[in-house]
Amino acid sequence: MSGEDKKTPPIIVSAEALKRFTRDVFVRMGMSEAHATTVAEVVVWANLRGVDSHGVTRVPRYVEWIEAGVVNPRPDISVVTETAASVLIEADRAAGPVAMTTAMEAAMRKARDTGVGLALVRATTHTAALGHYTQAAAHEGMAAVALAGSIPNMAYHGALAAGVSTSPISIAVPGGSRGPVVLDMATGIVSLGRLVQARRSGQPIPEGWALDQDGKPTTDPRHAEIPLPMAGPKGSGLALMIELITSVLVSNPILAETVGKPAKGRRHRQNGLVLAIDIARYSDPAAFGREVERLVAALKALPHEPGVEILIPGERGAREFEQRSRAGIPLPRATRDELDSMAERLGVPPLARD
Amino acid sequence: MSGEDKKTPPIIVSAEALKRFTRDVFVRMGMSEAHATTVAEVVVWANLRGVDSHGVTRVPRYVEWIEAGVVNPRPDISVVTETAASVLIEADRAAGPVAMTTAMEAAMRKARDTGVGLALVRATTHTAALGHYTQAAAHEGMAAVALAGSIPNMAYHGALAAGVSTSPISIAVPGGSRGPVVLDMATGIVSLGRLVQARRSGQPIPEGWALDQDGKPTTDPRHAEIPLPMAGPKGSGLALMIELITSVLVSNPILAETVGKPAKGRRHRQNGLVLAIDIARYSDPAAFGREVERLVAALKALPHEPGVEILIPGERGAREFEQRSRAGIPLPRATRDELDSMAERLGVPPLARD
Repeated sequence: MSGEDKKTPPIIVSAEALKRFTRDVFVRMGMSEAHATTVAEVVVWANLRGVDSHGVTRVPRYVEWIEAGVVNPRPDISVVTETAASVLIEADRAAGPVAMTTAMEAAMRKARDTGVGLALVRATTHTAALGHYTQAAAHEGMAAVALAGSIPNMAYHGALAAGVSTSPISIAVPGGSRGPVVLDMATGIVSLGRLVQARRSGQPIPEGWALDQDGKPTTDPRHAEIPLPMAGPKGSGLALMIELITSVLVSNPILAETVGKPAKGRRHRQNGLVLAIDIARYSDPAAFGREVERLVAALKALPHEPGVEILIPGERGAREFEQRSRAGIPLPRATRDELDSMAERLGVPPLARD
Repeated sequence: MSGEDKKTPPIIVSAEALKRFTRDVFVRMGMSEAHATTVAEVVVWANLRGVDSHGVTRVPRYVEWIEAGVVNPRPDISVVTETAASVLIEADRAAGPVAMTTAMEAAMRKARDTGVGLALVRATTHTAALGHYTQAAAHEGMAAVALAGSIPNMAYHGALAAGVSTSPISIAVPGGSRGPVVLDMATGIVSLGRLVQARRSGQPIPEGWALDQDGKPTTDPRHAEIPLPMAGPKGSGLALMIELITSVLVSNPILAETVGKPAKGRRHRQNGLVLAIDIARYSDPAAFGREVERLVAALKALPHEPGVEILIPGERGAREFEQRSRAGIPLPRATRDELDSMAERLGVPPLARD
């Protein structure tokens, strides 16, 4: 939050109002009603989960991308290759949520047929919060994995420059009565969003988090530009493998095109991979849910420092989802103002004041 | 290395001699010639790659496990479930290399049919170096993933006790002329082997590496028992998801059975998952190899500190493999002595002095 944000309390907006607004914006930008609804669902889901960095704050960027021809609002999404267990989807620069939702549905369809389904996504754009797609699959009784390859914004281990992306990994499985377990993590030691936050607050960052734009290690948040990989070679190794099994596998390499070259003139794009495994093919889904609960209970009962809560992947997000679904989503006034002026410029109804 | 090892130079043994010896040991323990050969291949491969912690030093442990009935030398390996794209294999407590090799072959067979192949492995034992299986698949033109679930030996984030395993992840793809890119990593910030090494050398370990047996953070290598997860919740989150999509998926839960319970009486077992993707189905394999090389070259050319070499996953192992294939494998004298006394006890020919 900026200094101004700190003084001004956030505005509370309902998820429904945010979804309606977001859908209106993308319909105005030329998307079909169905695609605009999908983008709105995925973006506002991130806000509901408390992952505001992937929420409506992204909408103005997505709009700019459509205006610049980077995101195609009327994509011709097609299946390039299809086997009994897989599809390779040409996304034609679709908005990430549209391409990834299409992909996860295809992977689940294949998994219902053959136990496992793979969908590769070529030439999409910002995939938004991957946990949305894996959680949706978990709700359908699937174990699911989602990966995304993107432009270099993270240091490769040993290098003094960006070499890989903070490529996200999400894995989800159905749970018992508590709902799915959803891991959704990036491969960096710290997110770009967290670095931006530190810059705004002015607080020094820990050693080992980031490099400045010249590749020098820094603890000064004003100069922290390039996050370092989590666990050194492990984080950048995972990020590299993700590029290889997404972008290179679908013949749309991103890193090899951009590493070591100026960011100027670089066009945003991403590639993705989703995998669905139909749990009912390999075990009893009810027993699976019970076993997940049993393990979760055992982990939460482990000894810990007083005041520390042992959390399961996705647990905090699920709690936030429930709370924000009830009480609304807090939007920093700066975000609200940006959305308002965008709405005015585009001639869509402003975000409703409920 | 122990103090004694430091004074005594290691003995150099050829890979062939080590393989012959290892095969003889397991044939003597009741394995078929074919299974014993597979175990020898996988174990000595680790030595050749320089991953000595997973090499022949494990052989006496494996023998003890066979003697204790933990590893079944004559397993009835069977396919429990089969679909067009997957198999669930009951490994019947087979030696890990036998079960995982069987699984990767099945996954590749399925991938040749349907583009992607999944093999789930129920009730195997120590899977040894996962990179062996993914690299083998990469040599056959596949992108491959391997995971293994095991007993709790790593702290769960926020807990002061072991809650998950240092579950390994391996991902490999074919490369160009340099050969496959092979990531093979555990989810801990440090391996158990490295902690043992620190204990022997007596050198303090960094903060944030490990807990003692009471769950207290320690830098004293004599008391470091429980490694911490890499990147906190990310490492333990990945390890948890691996248990869920291996052990729980194959109805052979390990962590829920053992977390928070005394280690005594706990029987060693593991479960696995391997995935193969036939690259030729989705892209041109020659172009894929060229693109891997182009990206590797771009990463290696990034700016770095003088004297630092930018390494690609598996590069150091490949180099070591070449060197040790030529010059032989250095065995600490203590290991050699242990293998010799085991050979005598079992009545197999001792490791050849070449």
